[in-house]
Amino acid sequence: MDTDIIRSWHKNTAPWVSAVRDGEIESRTLVTNQAIVDAVRSLAPASGIDIGCGEGWLVRALDGVAMTGVDVVPGLVEAARQAGGGDFRTMSYEEIAQARLDLAVDVAICNFSLLGDESVAGLFRAAPTYLKPGGALVVQTMHPVTACGDAPYVDGWREGSWAGFNEGFVDPPPWYFRTLASWVRLFTGHGLQLREIREPVHPRTGKPVSLILVGSLDGVREKYA
Amino acid sequence: MDTDIIRSWHKNTAPWVSAVRDGEIESRTLVTNQAIVDAVRSLAPASGIDIGCGEGWLVRALDGVAMTGVDVVPGLVEAARQAGGGDFRTMSYEEIAQARLDLAVDVAICNFSLLGDESVAGLFRAAPTYLKPGGALVVQTMHPVTACGDAPYVDGWREGSWAGFNEGFVDPPPWYFRTLASWVRLFTGHGLQLREIREPVHPRTGKPVSLILVGSLDGVREKYA
Repeated sequence: MDTDIIRSWHKNTAPWVSAVRDGEIESRTLVTNQAIVDAVRSLAPASGIDIGCGEGWLVRALDGVAMTGVDVVPGLVEAARQAGGGDFRTMSYEEIAQARLDLAVDVAICNFSLLGDESVAGLFRAAPTYLKPGGALVVQTMHPVTACGDAPYVDGWREGSWAGFNEGFVDPPPWYFRTLASWVRLFTGHGLQLREIREPVHPRTGKPVSLILVGSLDGVREKYA
Repeated sequence: MDTDIIRSWHKNTAPWVSAVRDGEIESRTLVTNQAIVDAVRSLAPASGIDIGCGEGWLVRALDGVAMTGVDVVPGLVEAARQAGGGDFRTMSYEEIAQARLDLAVDVAICNFSLLGDESVAGLFRAAPTYLKPGGALVVQTMHPVTACGDAPYVDGWREGSWAGFNEGFVDPPPWYFRTLASWVRLFTGHGLQLREIREPVHPRTGKPVSLILVGSLDGVREKYA
């Protein structure tokens, strides 16, 4: 299933670049773009990595932070490079899990980029290979309770959908649903202390749109210092 | 508003004792009673305190753990004492906040007993005066996202309701709604590391009924050891 996700993104590179750059995704332009920028800025990082950076908008938005962007889809990395604002690399989550990044940044960001199952656990396990001791991992994801829909509130694969996106999108990728409890366990189970949760609220519905979790590597400082 | 809550509980002591002891509250008998017992047992504590213990069922359920129960309502403490299973004291959250407990237990439990605003913050601030260094605070509360109802998802006072309870109940207490982000901040903002979140699910609806947060005092071990 994790590989189906990548296959889908290879096919949807072009519509994705225009959807993001033309501001077609309302929840992003209205709420979640600013929310992730605010969450990262509040940590005052000097350096960072955007994991699953896509076409690179967040790297560009974090001007003043020495940013690296990583994505597995070459077409997205190419689009990001052309727009600039940081260093960009093509790399899979599996390669990151194998310590291939070899960085030591202040903050790592996964902005709606954790769609898989095992591949996500691998990223968390590898945090000490790209984060400084004391560095933070910031994850934004759909709010589990509101995103659950009619299905039972349990972890598991869900069918994807491009509902609300333009007609250029094909073959929606499957995604792995995680409860709030499971998101928290991804942090605490991999040596990351949960520091903060944010719940950006939609201005019209008054309900939480997304969940931002901030964890830090403090707990294993001695081990990796 | 915090005092309105206590006033209401003084009036509802008798119906509350029977509602709990006769198993009238379905979400409790079906889901949340066992969930809090499991969460506490998973920590294997030797000693504990139940803050806002009511008529004392949880103290009795945690047999084998040296338990103290505390409640501000004398009628509830009296009912708890008669049923036994631990030590019981009549004390307000304000008195606990003033370090009047003077205990050092392995686990403190607040099971649906954090209904107020300032009084709750005081309890968290005082955690080092009743918990051992490394001790855990376990809170069960209604799941914020599902309990929010039609109101905006922001902290604030809400009107109480006895809907679903028997006709003996009067003057429902107001309660202070907290978002998930605010619950987490109560822990992290008072020197408690968030260790775990549990989301007990209703067997019929498949949706989370409650939220259990487990924090520990590890972060301030040096200070209070």
